[in-house]
Amino acid sequence: MSAPASAFGRLHAYLHQTRLLGSISSSLYYDQNTVMPAAGAPWRGEQLALLATQLHQRQSQQEYVDLLAAAEAELEPDSPPQSRRNLQLLRLELERQRCLDPDLVGRLAQAQSRGNALWQQARRSNDFPLFAPALQELLTLRRDQAAQLAAAEPIARSPWETLAQPFEPDISKARLDELFTPLKQQLPALLARAAELGGRTATGQLGGSTEAFDLAEGAQEALCAELLEGWGYDPRRCQRARSAHPFSCTVGPQDFRITTRVVPGQPFSAFLATAHEWGHSLYEQGLPRDGQHYFPWPLGEATSMGVHESQSLFWECRVARSRAFAERWLPRFQAAAGVEAWGSSQDFWRCLNPLRPGLIRVEADELSYCLHIVLRYELELELVEGGLPVADLPAEWNRRMVASLGLLPPSDSDGCLQDIHWAEGLFGYFPSYALGHLISAQLSQTLEQDLGPLETLVASGEEERLRGWLAARVWPLGRSVNGEELVRQVTGRPLGAEPFLTYLAAKVDQLAG
Amino acid sequence: MSAPASAFGRLHAYLHQTRLLGSISSSLYYDQNTVMPAAGAPWRGEQLALLATQLHQRQSQQEYVDLLAAAEAELEPDSPPQSRRNLQLLRLELERQRCLDPDLVGRLAQAQSRGNALWQQARRSNDFPLFAPALQELLTLRRDQAAQLAAAEPIARSPWETLAQPFEPDISKARLDELFTPLKQQLPALLARAAELGGRTATGQLGGSTEAFDLAEGAQEALCAELLEGWGYDPRRCQRARSAHPFSCTVGPQDFRITTRVVPGQPFSAFLATAHEWGHSLYEQGLPRDGQHYFPWPLGEATSMGVHESQSLFWECRVARSRAFAERWLPRFQAAAGVEAWGSSQDFWRCLNPLRPGLIRVEADELSYCLHIVLRYELELELVEGGLPVADLPAEWNRRMVASLGLLPPSDSDGCLQDIHWAEGLFGYFPSYALGHLISAQLSQTLEQDLGPLETLVASGEEERLRGWLAARVWPLGRSVNGEELVRQVTGRPLGAEPFLTYLAAKVDQLAG
Repeated sequence: MSAPASAFGRLHAYLHQTRLLGSISSSLYYDQNTVMPAAGAPWRGEQLALLATQLHQRQSQQEYVDLLAAAEAELEPDSPPQSRRNLQLLRLELERQRCLDPDLVGRLAQAQSRGNALWQQARRSNDFPLFAPALQELLTLRRDQAAQLAAAEPIARSPWETLAQPFEPDISKARLDELFTPLKQQLPALLARAAELGGRTATGQLGGSTEAFDLAEGAQEALCAELLEGWGYDPRRCQRARSAHPFSCTVGPQDFRITTRVVPGQPFSAFLATAHEWGHSLYEQGLPRDGQHYFPWPLGEATSMGVHESQSLFWECRVARSRAFAERWLPRFQAAAGVEAWGSSQDFWRCLNPLRPGLIRVEADELSYCLHIVLRYELELELVEGGLPVADLPAEWNRRMVASLGLLPPSDSDGCLQDIHWAEGLFGYFPSYALGHLISAQLSQTLEQDLGPLETLVASGEEERLRGWLAARVWPLGRSVNGEELVRQVTGRPLGAEPFLTYLAAKVDQLAG
Repeated sequence: MSAPASAFGRLHAYLHQTRLLGSISSSLYYDQNTVMPAAGAPWRGEQLALLATQLHQRQSQQEYVDLLAAAEAELEPDSPPQSRRNLQLLRLELERQRCLDPDLVGRLAQAQSRGNALWQQARRSNDFPLFAPALQELLTLRRDQAAQLAAAEPIARSPWETLAQPFEPDISKARLDELFTPLKQQLPALLARAAELGGRTATGQLGGSTEAFDLAEGAQEALCAELLEGWGYDPRRCQRARSAHPFSCTVGPQDFRITTRVVPGQPFSAFLATAHEWGHSLYEQGLPRDGQHYFPWPLGEATSMGVHESQSLFWECRVARSRAFAERWLPRFQAAAGVEAWGSSQDFWRCLNPLRPGLIRVEADELSYCLHIVLRYELELELVEGGLPVADLPAEWNRRMVASLGLLPPSDSDGCLQDIHWAEGLFGYFPSYALGHLISAQLSQTLEQDLGPLETLVASGEEERLRGWLAARVWPLGRSVNGEELVRQVTGRPLGAEPFLTYLAAKVDQLAG
């Protein structure tokens, strides 16, 4: 246990310990959302607050400040660029941490835990006022946090932009406007076209009625297990469970967890959520870990939440919702249902792609999903920096749902209470979901240039080649780049909405055909 | 978040934080043994080592030393005796912690985690040599620990005695000799009598063949759920799962977990283990928490592991294995089996009490259980302070099994690899199991003096009155006493083997009748 001679080596050991501490929180979070009894919540909140305070201390205390400065001083003109990048990322993060009042960090962790618990109750009983004070507290604390963080930002950013940086480095409202405007302009037309084409089908909608045949919980479980087995799930390194909201989390460098949920009346929900969360987990499992520049350094971390989401959406939408996949999996679903459900494979494919607006984001189709995100993005902008009172959120949510998707939520549980994010104070996170769609589509174009059509690869069960391509081109980049740089590096072009919109337009036509 | 004015108040806040940290370890331990994938073990080991080091630091650092001294200085002649006792217990524990090298604490935690992982593998593949180096390391580290701790002990103790103190305060080898000698002398005769009486029954043994009817996993699960429901299990505060070795653990003041396992061919194993672990959990749930002298102070902790075990054994052996309980539960077991299994309620009772020696401690009957413990106690004495080489453990184990129970383990998995304790370096723990039997029997005598015969109470389903008696007489004592003092206080007599041996002799006769 002798200390390494170089500051670099000592910093490595220090970051390793920091990772240990952070991963303990992940483990408690997983437990909290899968098995913890409800009465355990206050204590769990205190545990997480203690860990958050410790983590903040480790990331801001003088010992670390000195260590980082010493490592920076060791940099030579011919030092590896990875070392320089790692230290730059650590420096930025340190400056952010140092701006924060430790007391705020602890209070935030407790408010998150309380928010989570109250949100679960409020959602069950459709009681927004029960949750509102917790949301108000989270907003206040996050605004305080943004104000404290502003000093560390290399450029001037709005409070929302400041809060979004940890999820999407370098993101700005202006850039999101550029990317989201084509979505806002063109998705409604695509939805209208899907509705119009749907009118010509037997069920009267594009995408069959998924409610026609439900699947028993055990059958859904078996299908999920089969899917994962074919996609490289290794029970020696992975674990899965149920939770109210599906998620993926990494508990250790060799310990990956995913969760799903079974939704009555939605036979594909658990299956597609499993594909989605497994996409996240594959990315985590594929992040660069070996070599002195990676784990536990920043370069071994995910590029951004948008890139993370592009990986889950790739497996969910481009693979599991593809025509070829439907063809291959119909027999297994029919065997699981025990009846000749879902008709032809074209019909089954339509069931996997029900192109019609719905109330719930996580069950949304590919056409309306990004409109859900735009709604949330614009609402949280209003909440964080636009002066929208928390009490007005339900009405404002409903008003915008009607305007954007033509649907009025019958309850807040199906409206502004549906997502866990705000319940944990995650403002600035939602846009990454939409960016994930755009990134996935643009990466897929390049993948097809390299390997041939996705449909052909999926038809012959060559998902391992897809994994291989991602493992070679996308996963190793880690935080050597930001999300947009990753796209430019892999695809040769700046990120845009066009590949996604082109893909969707073609899919609508094929679903009708 | 302003600090309390009195040193007592500040010490309270300090201990609260210490409890938070300790309970994080418990949560990780629960996760490790119920869901964690195998490859997560090394990282989990590092996490637990980090927490153990932090815990050790908190319990020995100057801030705490000063705080405790300041609280001691605040004691007045008319201070409550509880305050004095709390500070005495903390002082003793502090002196122990201060003797320990922090490096040893960290290495021990890692060795425990490694030991656990290797033991699981070794047990599966019956490969003692795979586990032996880990056991050797644990023994070396524990011997070092005992040597360091010796300085803090108020009286001279042997290494084994020193290691046993945290489990059984004030225990000595001499006292164990006094208590165990009657067991070694009289239990073989009782076993012989059971075998003799068994020869006169239809099955040729006292206690029916439990292998005759097995129960499906789901049926066992349902029976366990029904048992717990009747015994006050509250899913808002409790959670249960499966693990290789059943255990109970407290994750927070309102968060209690128990585990069980289903053993093929042993239809009562999960059920009785559930009764047992629930007994532990009830005790934890009933420890004094309210009032300024209890949680998070030592007085709010369990008296000793022997007392803890007396509570689990009470519910398992005195209630779930009683004649009246068999009468009440036979119809439910038959319904679960779907056949008229297990004959009459007397036969069923015999099945719940198979009085014949077996290889596995946790499946052992009440007659041979303590002989299992004596074997382990004597062997760990040999390992820790008698010079027995680790490599000789399997042969020595087998030799003593033959001498004591007349059985030769066919494999080490059924022999010296069966228990988790040594795999986690828990030397000095086993005797508490036998003490639990003695304490349970002696407490039961007093309970019957107060409430009438146990059989009558169980026959009328009045388990709540049993719980009430324990809640009033036993659970509130916490660490105001040690195990033997608790017995003297509740029963009016010193602890002895006689109530247990008397109970067993009567039970053998009734089972034959």
